[in-house]
Amino acid sequence: MNIPRTSFPRVVIVGGGFAGVALAKKLSKQELQVVLLDKNNYHTFQPLLYQVSTGGLEPDSIAYPIRKILKDFPNFHFRLAHVQEIDANHGKVITDIGVLKFDYLVVASGSKTNYFGNTEIEKYSMAMKTIPQSLNLRSLILENFEDALLTSDLNERNALMNFVIVGGGPTGVELAGALAEIKKVILPKDYPDLDTRMAQIHIIQSGDCLLKGMSEKASQKAEDFLEKLGVNVWKNVRVTNYNGKTVTTNTDLTFETATLIWAAGVKGATIKGLDAQEFLVRGNRLLVNEFNQVKGFENIFAVGDVACMQTETYPNGLPMMAQPAIQQGHQLGDNMIRLIEKEPMKPFKYKDKGAMATIGRNKAVVDLRKFKFQGVFAWYVWMFVHLFFLIGFRNRMVVFVNWVYNYVRFDREARLIIRPFKKRLKP
Amino acid sequence: MNIPRTSFPRVVIVGGGFAGVALAKKLSKQELQVVLLDKNNYHTFQPLLYQVSTGGLEPDSIAYPIRKILKDFPNFHFRLAHVQEIDANHGKVITDIGVLKFDYLVVASGSKTNYFGNTEIEKYSMAMKTIPQSLNLRSLILENFEDALLTSDLNERNALMNFVIVGGGPTGVELAGALAEIKKVILPKDYPDLDTRMAQIHIIQSGDCLLKGMSEKASQKAEDFLEKLGVNVWKNVRVTNYNGKTVTTNTDLTFETATLIWAAGVKGATIKGLDAQEFLVRGNRLLVNEFNQVKGFENIFAVGDVACMQTETYPNGLPMMAQPAIQQGHQLGDNMIRLIEKEPMKPFKYKDKGAMATIGRNKAVVDLRKFKFQGVFAWYVWMFVHLFFLIGFRNRMVVFVNWVYNYVRFDREARLIIRPFKKRLKP
Repeated sequence: MNIPRTSFPRVVIVGGGFAGVALAKKLSKQELQVVLLDKNNYHTFQPLLYQVSTGGLEPDSIAYPIRKILKDFPNFHFRLAHVQEIDANHGKVITDIGVLKFDYLVVASGSKTNYFGNTEIEKYSMAMKTIPQSLNLRSLILENFEDALLTSDLNERNALMNFVIVGGGPTGVELAGALAEIKKVILPKDYPDLDTRMAQIHIIQSGDCLLKGMSEKASQKAEDFLEKLGVNVWKNVRVTNYNGKTVTTNTDLTFETATLIWAAGVKGATIKGLDAQEFLVRGNRLLVNEFNQVKGFENIFAVGDVACMQTETYPNGLPMMAQPAIQQGHQLGDNMIRLIEKEPMKPFKYKDKGAMATIGRNKAVVDLRKFKFQGVFAWYVWMFVHLFFLIGFRNRMVVFVNWVYNYVRFDREARLIIRPFKKRLKP
Repeated sequence: MNIPRTSFPRVVIVGGGFAGVALAKKLSKQELQVVLLDKNNYHTFQPLLYQVSTGGLEPDSIAYPIRKILKDFPNFHFRLAHVQEIDANHGKVITDIGVLKFDYLVVASGSKTNYFGNTEIEKYSMAMKTIPQSLNLRSLILENFEDALLTSDLNERNALMNFVIVGGGPTGVELAGALAEIKKVILPKDYPDLDTRMAQIHIIQSGDCLLKGMSEKASQKAEDFLEKLGVNVWKNVRVTNYNGKTVTTNTDLTFETATLIWAAGVKGATIKGLDAQEFLVRGNRLLVNEFNQVKGFENIFAVGDVACMQTETYPNGLPMMAQPAIQQGHQLGDNMIRLIEKEPMKPFKYKDKGAMATIGRNKAVVDLRKFKFQGVFAWYVWMFVHLFFLIGFRNRMVVFVNWVYNYVRFDREARLIIRPFKKRLKP
């Protein structure tokens, strides 16, 4: 990779997610050469992916060009690259565009969908971890309704109009709520030929509550909101398989559906060379110490979802969410400067700022450290916080205009099948 | 196709472009069953496709769900379908989702890129007639700059940064201007590692002026604006081939480029069964009479780009543009009602409302019937007219916010490679 060596130490960051970008910002004015590698040229605001899937937002509203984030940073280089391997002993990163030597390496490669080894589910289900995946899901939902018009087989039609979401975390809950609102408000207008009351939305959770990790009140209220919206909530049910038609579970329950959305788990997106069992803990994550150093290395770090930092409160590692990633990125930036200046690093301390989820119009649940609340006010708080954290003035304005429009008009405009997902409609 | 027959006559419209949608609106409250078929579930505002290609607008801003346009029309049915053949003698449309009988048929299938039989150009060049094509072009432009960073071969790097646009019509001119602005304002910030001054934009026109069909003043001014922006304008040059690397012409001129954008011509998108030579004239268009009836049929019509209505002013047919399509759609709606009520139809008369093109920030040319002007005021007129004609409140607001942002910040945000076009980056 033709990036000239300078007199500055070189830091290579793998991944431009929340952690990688937070770190990059901290290092922006240091005497360091920083190379950021990502397989996309954009940063994704993952918490709003479900809005892309359900036509509430356009993909560009929640993605931001990485080059634009870095544009005022001297000594920064971005390369669009797939990282293939890390040669830790020789200080090299091997990518599809060449080899890069590093003095310091930060693995911020995030997480990917965990199918727990079930290849049939992996093959037939939809995931929602990336923008292309979310767009595929959007296309599929719309294509299913178009196809439902074409069949006179009632079972087939119902299967095309049924949506099964596996996983009762924020992703699953927010998606279920959005689908329920689409069913209620948009489908009857768009598909007068269909009896859209037959459309069913199921959310299946293996544990005994939704939004595990949030307060009992939030969890219960989220369930109430979903049921009020007509979503079927199944708790203590574990999905065992899906063959593209039928969902089987560990109980007698089965579901006929053309669309299974798998939001039941993630695992660390580790990289060859640093994926030996000695480095890994539960969830395929890289074990790190309180300075985010990977076991056995002084100059290799991991942050965000891929890193597992075990604390007293979180013996299995910090939650795989935006907040720990951002906080770790920031702190690692400070610590790297300390390390280079031969000062002692400071141990990371996670500040839990709370959690929130939105279920639908005027329906959200918010757990802050001191206050927990649900309903309309929570919904406004949710919107404000998400708007605030979206990078960039224009993104915020566009998202705001869309949300106001959707709110006032009970509508979602982006219901376009730009790139068909199903074979039938491939151009 | 399971659309039940009613006592109303059935009108089948093939295509939801400007003409098809204008017609549908006119028929919205008649005692007719109307079936609209399109291979996309959205209507495309084609005049702004170049903004999608160059990252100024998001695709969803210039596309609009067809079902939403039709939602308040009783007796309307939309089907997402590829029309494969028309059996005119038996009154049938054959599609990939089944056969549909019609009492009246309107072919509004538009136009497609005309490569004039050159398969190499067709294979290696980029077109900009649809949203997926425009997104592919956007991805390719960005991918080329990423790849330019990776090579140390100066010729290869320059070829990756050179853009050749063939065709000096509005599409070519507007795209050239937008690329020139990106080169000037965005590339130096985004690619500090590249000498982006080496990026070249060429526009090649076989005739002796740009914007043929507009006034001499507009044409000259457009050329001045482009040259001021650093675009190389080549007139009286005809491109003869492109092998993916080198553009050859009918002169000594050749161009080394990784990106050829073909905007040199369109032809009618005719449909099997109505594509015999007896129906067609120059440009592969269906010859129609002054009532838009296809030769030999009383109940089969064609409107918009695919129809060729020869008039005194336009002996080769009306221009393939939005205005004639919209006006024909409207008038055909009225005429079909007259035909069904056994009243005499009224011959179509084209009202030329003028033409306009934008070259860049504060730079546009406008020809109205009585006034012709260029520059800043023309640019505001262009923006106002395009905003006004964009369907839907939200689209307009979002486009407006984007344009204001781009204007104030000298920026274009949507520079994301959501779906990579090149093989190297395919996931």
